[in-house]
Amino acid sequence: MNLKTLGEFNFIDLIKEKAIVHPDHVITGIGDDSAIFQSDRNRVNAISTDTLVEGIHFVRDQVTPYDVGLKALAVTLSDLAAMGARPAHALMNLSVPPDIELAYLEQLFAGFYDLALIYNINLIGGDLTASRRDITISVTVVGDVSRRRALHRNGAQPGDKLLVTGTLGNSAAGQMLLSKSLEFTNESARERLIKAHTQPKPYIFEGEFIAESGCATSMIDISDGLSSDLNHIVNQSQVSAQIYASKLPSSDELRSFCDATGTNPLELLLHGGEEYSLLFSLKPVQADLFIASYQHRFNSHITVIGEIVEGYGMQLIDATGKSTEIEPAGWDHFAP
Amino acid sequence: MNLKTLGEFNFIDLIKEKAIVHPDHVITGIGDDSAIFQSDRNRVNAISTDTLVEGIHFVRDQVTPYDVGLKALAVTLSDLAAMGARPAHALMNLSVPPDIELAYLEQLFAGFYDLALIYNINLIGGDLTASRRDITISVTVVGDVSRRRALHRNGAQPGDKLLVTGTLGNSAAGQMLLSKSLEFTNESARERLIKAHTQPKPYIFEGEFIAESGCATSMIDISDGLSSDLNHIVNQSQVSAQIYASKLPSSDELRSFCDATGTNPLELLLHGGEEYSLLFSLKPVQADLFIASYQHRFNSHITVIGEIVEGYGMQLIDATGKSTEIEPAGWDHFAP
Repeated sequence: MNLKTLGEFNFIDLIKEKAIVHPDHVITGIGDDSAIFQSDRNRVNAISTDTLVEGIHFVRDQVTPYDVGLKALAVTLSDLAAMGARPAHALMNLSVPPDIELAYLEQLFAGFYDLALIYNINLIGGDLTASRRDITISVTVVGDVSRRRALHRNGAQPGDKLLVTGTLGNSAAGQMLLSKSLEFTNESARERLIKAHTQPKPYIFEGEFIAESGCATSMIDISDGLSSDLNHIVNQSQVSAQIYASKLPSSDELRSFCDATGTNPLELLLHGGEEYSLLFSLKPVQADLFIASYQHRFNSHITVIGEIVEGYGMQLIDATGKSTEIEPAGWDHFAP
Repeated sequence: MNLKTLGEFNFIDLIKEKAIVHPDHVITGIGDDSAIFQSDRNRVNAISTDTLVEGIHFVRDQVTPYDVGLKALAVTLSDLAAMGARPAHALMNLSVPPDIELAYLEQLFAGFYDLALIYNINLIGGDLTASRRDITISVTVVGDVSRRRALHRNGAQPGDKLLVTGTLGNSAAGQMLLSKSLEFTNESARERLIKAHTQPKPYIFEGEFIAESGCATSMIDISDGLSSDLNHIVNQSQVSAQIYASKLPSSDELRSFCDATGTNPLELLLHGGEEYSLLFSLKPVQADLFIASYQHRFNSHITVIGEIVEGYGMQLIDATGKSTEIEPAGWDHFAP
């Protein structure tokens, strides 16, 4: 059955059933002109939105509809994580060609709802429209954050340590494997790299932990690539950053991929986008204690990759101590 | 110059300048991972989102970019109006082909910002992405509403009066004039009809007034057509409605259009979409007082078009008192 046969309103009834996972603050969800929800009065709201476009962010034949739905939510959640906010409610704007198979849409919502359940996110509204050819999916997420603790891009101070959660470059390698035919026979590594690209992990709990610690001074999620996103922090904080090439955290599967394909790992670590690791600056005196308590809480990678210093731009320090300027080279949809 | 030459971040810097029109509750706007804003603690948040897709909702050559930007905001504002909510902040997800002219985008934002200024709406975030061919624009609006006063679709009671703001059918006639070559020489009427379609009026102040009056029991905006949207009210309220054909409010220009083109006005009045008039039910004892105070406040059309009765479905009563069933026949993107 396709969407044209079923009709818009019948389809919305179908997907409504699994939409609310924590009803406490939802006064009105899907099925009225607006959603209505209440926010905790001691906290402020945070809201963010992201779009995935067929042919730009994903190729329909390369990625399952499950992963499209999951990723559309994951990347938007990541933006709230990067403020230290706790996401609560989502809206989805979905434009699809009228002849799309219902099974495709059901799988798309299955991916969305599976991730929503993990992070306790309600779907409270959206808009379902036709398109002439391509699928476009925009997800908006609303949450809240303690006003005092919200982490912006402009708070980094000279002397701060610079850290990232997780590892870097896996998503970019996964995208290369999806879009090019590359010789790489390590099947389990291939799977992990592709999954990093198609099912990115939003660092929600980690982001809230970092913000609530009170030790961090700025934060961003690495959506465009480390060089591009660090550039936002140094520009908006009016500082400079020094990154140690040898400290950039890479996974076993990434190193195996780079060896097998002759890819320069530094290229992926510095400029690979869609990683959704959190990049943040930390007051130096509290750094050791923070890292210990983070690792106790999450049992996952967290790495000091450099420092904030006075000045402009970003410098990469190699193993010999030589410094070279880093040019931001991440994802710009419209770059020449 | 086109967007590809300028680059994504430079363009965002350009449009950021006019984004905040009431800074009071905005803690973070465009340029961080999420926007952060504070809501009044005595009210609850309302949020809604709508999408306009090129080739589905507008044809690029027929509508100015100014009108696309204005309408994308207007239709979303209308959803908040239909709850009685006061909109405050907007996000825009814009997907455009990389070779789009910068002048096109500037005009699109000019239309958006002009309307935003009238209704005091901040643009606090969004997402700018490439597309392969078509323009897709999703606008999300957040506002607040008194929890007690918010008007849903399910509150209509037998005995209630049914009212609409403004007139009906103008937008549908305007769309016909845009998409078909029709003989209609009344130039000023033609202009008004097309404007009703390309620059719809969101009934924001009226919606809040209706909700705050405490006399209304349900409300919806006529986005899909009177028959389709009234159908939502009667279904969700588990009631029936009787509409008087002779009472449906039409404009001089609509009557002139129908005469000249041989169009059945009832078709446009009942089923014409994208009107964004508010349709609401009102407690009968307070109806006269409410209507008088509404007209005193707004100096614009408000019309009793029928009543809520017990039962199912919707009936149209003609001048002789004869009743016929109304089938919902408004806009469904995916209808067979």
